[in-house]
Amino acid sequence: MARHSLRVTVWNENLHEQHQESVKKIYPNGMHVPIADGIKRELRDVAVRTATFDEPEHGLTAGVLAETDVMTWWGHAAHERVEDAVVERVHQRVLDGMGLVVLHSGHKSKIFMRLMGTSCRLRWREMGEREVVWTVSPSHPIAAGVPQAFVIPHQEMYGEFFDIPPPDELVFISSFEGGEVFRGGCCFRRGAGRIFYFSPGHEEYPVYFQPEVQRVIANAVAWCGAAAQPNDDVSSRQDNAPHHWFLARQVK
Amino acid sequence: MARHSLRVTVWNENLHEQHQESVKKIYPNGMHVPIADGIKRELRDVAVRTATFDEPEHGLTAGVLAETDVMTWWGHAAHERVEDAVVERVHQRVLDGMGLVVLHSGHKSKIFMRLMGTSCRLRWREMGEREVVWTVSPSHPIAAGVPQAFVIPHQEMYGEFFDIPPPDELVFISSFEGGEVFRGGCCFRRGAGRIFYFSPGHEEYPVYFQPEVQRVIANAVAWCGAAAQPNDDVSSRQDNAPHHWFLARQVK
Amino acid sequence: MARHSLRVTVWNENLHEQHQESVKKIYPNGMHVPIADGIKRELRDVAVRTATFDEPEHGLTAGVLAETDVMTWWGHAAHERVEDAVVERVHQRVLDGMGLVVLHSGHKSKIFMRLMGTSCRLRWREMGEREVVWTVSPSHPIAAGVPQAFVIPHQEMYGEFFDIPPPDELVFISSFEGGEVFRGGCCFRRGAGRIFYFSPGHEEYPVYFQPEVQRVIANAVAWCGAAAQPNDDVSSRQDNAPHHWFLARQVK
Amino acid sequence: MARHSLRVTVWNENLHEQHQESVKKIYPNGMHVPIADGIKRELRDVAVRTATFDEPEHGLTAGVLAETDVMTWWGHAAHERVEDAVVERVHQRVLDGMGLVVLHSGHKSKIFMRLMGTSCRLRWREMGEREVVWTVSPSHPIAAGVPQAFVIPHQEMYGEFFDIPPPDELVFISSFEGGEVFRGGCCFRRGAGRIFYFSPGHEEYPVYFQPEVQRVIANAVAWCGAAAQPNDDVSSRQDNAPHHWFLARQVK
Repeated sequence: MARHSLRVTVWNENLHEQHQESVKKIYPNGMHVPIADGIKRELRDVAVRTATFDEPEHGLTAGVLAETDVMTWWGHAAHERVEDAVVERVHQRVLDGMGLVVLHSGHKSKIFMRLMGTSCRLRWREMGEREVVWTVSPSHPIAAGVPQAFVIPHQEMYGEFFDIPPPDELVFISSFEGGEVFRGGCCFRRGAGRIFYFSPGHEEYPVYFQPEVQRVIANAVAWCGAAAQPNDDVSSRQDNAPHHWFLARQVK
Repeated sequence: MARHSLRVTVWNENLHEQHQESVKKIYPNGMHVPIADGIKRELRDVAVRTATFDEPEHGLTAGVLAETDVMTWWGHAAHERVEDAVVERVHQRVLDGMGLVVLHSGHKSKIFMRLMGTSCRLRWREMGEREVVWTVSPSHPIAAGVPQAFVIPHQEMYGEFFDIPPPDELVFISSFEGGEVFRGGCCFRRGAGRIFYFSPGHEEYPVYFQPEVQRVIANAVAWCGAAAQPNDDVSSRQDNAPHHWFLARQVK
Repeated sequence: MARHSLRVTVWNENLHEQHQESVKKIYPNGMHVPIADGIKRELRDVAVRTATFDEPEHGLTAGVLAETDVMTWWGHAAHERVEDAVVERVHQRVLDGMGLVVLHSGHKSKIFMRLMGTSCRLRWREMGEREVVWTVSPSHPIAAGVPQAFVIPHQEMYGEFFDIPPPDELVFISSFEGGEVFRGGCCFRRGAGRIFYFSPGHEEYPVYFQPEVQRVIANAVAWCGAAAQPNDDVSSRQDNAPHHWFLARQVK
Repeated sequence: MARHSLRVTVWNENLHEQHQESVKKIYPNGMHVPIADGIKRELRDVAVRTATFDEPEHGLTAGVLAETDVMTWWGHAAHERVEDAVVERVHQRVLDGMGLVVLHSGHKSKIFMRLMGTSCRLRWREMGEREVVWTVSPSHPIAAGVPQAFVIPHQEMYGEFFDIPPPDELVFISSFEGGEVFRGGCCFRRGAGRIFYFSPGHEEYPVYFQPEVQRVIANAVAWCGAAAQPNDDVSSRQDNAPHHWFLARQVK
């Protein structure tokens, strides 16, 4: 089975970068650029495209989704304005096997809340505190090549209680200078898809240029893209089933 | 802390019982009656009310919800016709700590799919097969007093793949005469609430009169009602947090 | 079913308290006294006894174990000298349904390592740093009445990576002044028993007199003691099984 | 990083095959031969060796272990006679990152019980019943290319209650003609290693020649071998840590 390159779509709201001077200085071309660059540098055999809020259908047409194995998602100011039809389409693709890497303030995006079923609220504070990211699952593929602890010099604080379902796997926990902790690296399996939430990445700091952060995102893209493609067609997996249907398929 | 009785609302669509002769014979007063009877018999200190689809707001007004600690949910024919505002209200109450016991075909209810974030599809067959319910977590409170295996003589088959998130705790697995298996007793924690899905209960068989089934439902009601009430007000748990806010609250 | 009071055995190595002046000043009667006092104050209807390393069979005879529903365990200096026969006996009782609350340096006890199957190593530092204990599962019974964050003014630092199996439920995460994090409140289910590990409690600080810590320990004792007693005898649950043995037990 | 081929050691007790005529007929060269053949056929770039009970140190010398990335384990009659020093060595290697695939009656091996911390008992019956293996996690890499349900025509029945810790991931559930169910495909993470238990494989039936079974074992070998190698040396991950040690390692 000659598998194609992993096809990644880096989605970025890209509004702060256009409308806020302080952000424009850090990310003059939008956060999606360093995010995409990191993925390309770290992964071999990957095809990365970007898409942003302002494009028609937010750049997430049925065609783009059909050609996407893993999507990364950064949003904040325009969560409410993301079209429901697009959210519905992304949701279905995740359940059908597309990976989804949700970044930072994406925790309150429609798509993440829909997949989680909870409020996804958290505690926060903007003071540019030091964040330390700790690996609590050192053999997890998403932690490969990542130091057991690494420092992000200045970050928005995200703290518990974070209202998510208990993660299927917990990979990273962050601490902040002020004393808060946060489950900032969480794996979820939903339908045939895999989801990874990763909290670092405020728009006011150059977090997405930091090599360790890029490494985690690239690892997450690879992991989310490694879900097995179910080899049975959907109709054989679900819905009305004849009695002893599986005997007909038995190996002789 | 003098806790009041556990307040339970048994919700039942109650349409098959009115419009289908075969069902009317088995459940002349609606499935909610034996379900409520079982809960009352098994649990001490419980206040049970019932509510059905045909009532205004499906009997689930804000007032009723405010006075409900645990709700059980049976629905099937009218899933699509349950009002979104009511679903929204129930969802919020679960996240705020209300327990929810979802029964049988409730797997495709709006409220369950919303809490799970997945399609909740499954394999099914109506042949009146024998179901055996196996306890795989014998010390779980929901299995208390339940035989390690018990038989439901005739049931609709529900089989895998069941498209739910990996359960936070798996209590029962069923087998069917035709060879299928099903994760039929699953615990989920969402927000401050607990959810239990229990698959037995087709409307064409007197399943809800069976003592073991009633016992499981009563245990599940008690377990879902035992979530601790978070003692911090919501505002202290989430949203914007001053630096070192917790030091002000320190025990002297 | 008139259940007896919850029978708790507070086990304490009680060697630092006898041989180290600094510890003797804080815990003149041994740490087991404030631990036991806290349990008695917080729980109703509980019978608490204590046992220590120096007693014959470490005070954990077959008779004592047979009358113990939940045990708490504090050890450190004498881990290696705890008799294997006693460890074997405690292990078997846990699998048969006894609860076990393992405290602080008990992470390297023979009994905890045996139940976990891993090395249970961690990172540590003795500097008397401030610890903040964060609830990440606010509706868990072990968090009932516990502030969302509480401060232990001076503590030994315990940090990740903590080599345990992924906890079945994660209730608390600690942060330390130095920036480390630690999964310090972890639930495990093993056999018919429940285990809770709770990290606060260095012998050089009066941690076990602190009300929040006592509250958590009492809650943990109650939770570990709430495992359902499997109602089937062991022989019906396991080993050689006749064909269709469960049909003979079917409800008529 | 030019990674070497995945190095697999297929361990087989290989006693039934020598001493029991009925087994000798099915597996004249020992079960390890079809197991190894299946792994070689399904995986690319793999180096497979075999080892058996009768060899010195059961063929599991320190040298062999140092060159093994993943081990498969089949044992039954001689569980008690496996040397403790070898078990200790294998245990340590798993915690250090070696994968372990435990097959069928290996559930009662010293190494599996040690890693689990529980009794690992189960219900069983030898009647040559039909087993159906159901995938409950269709996108898991261990299920890749495996039908959603497949039939093993004749098998020993293994049924619940299976006394293991709650699996970190549940991939397969089996049903048997007699009505029992079994969690027969379970993932566990312990230390830096991954473990997969797979129940099919009685010595009296040619189960290990069946393509689907070989496929699952090969997938499991690949998955267990895909644990990331922690890039920090062990001393940086654990034990005594200077204050702010991680700042010295910060990216400039």
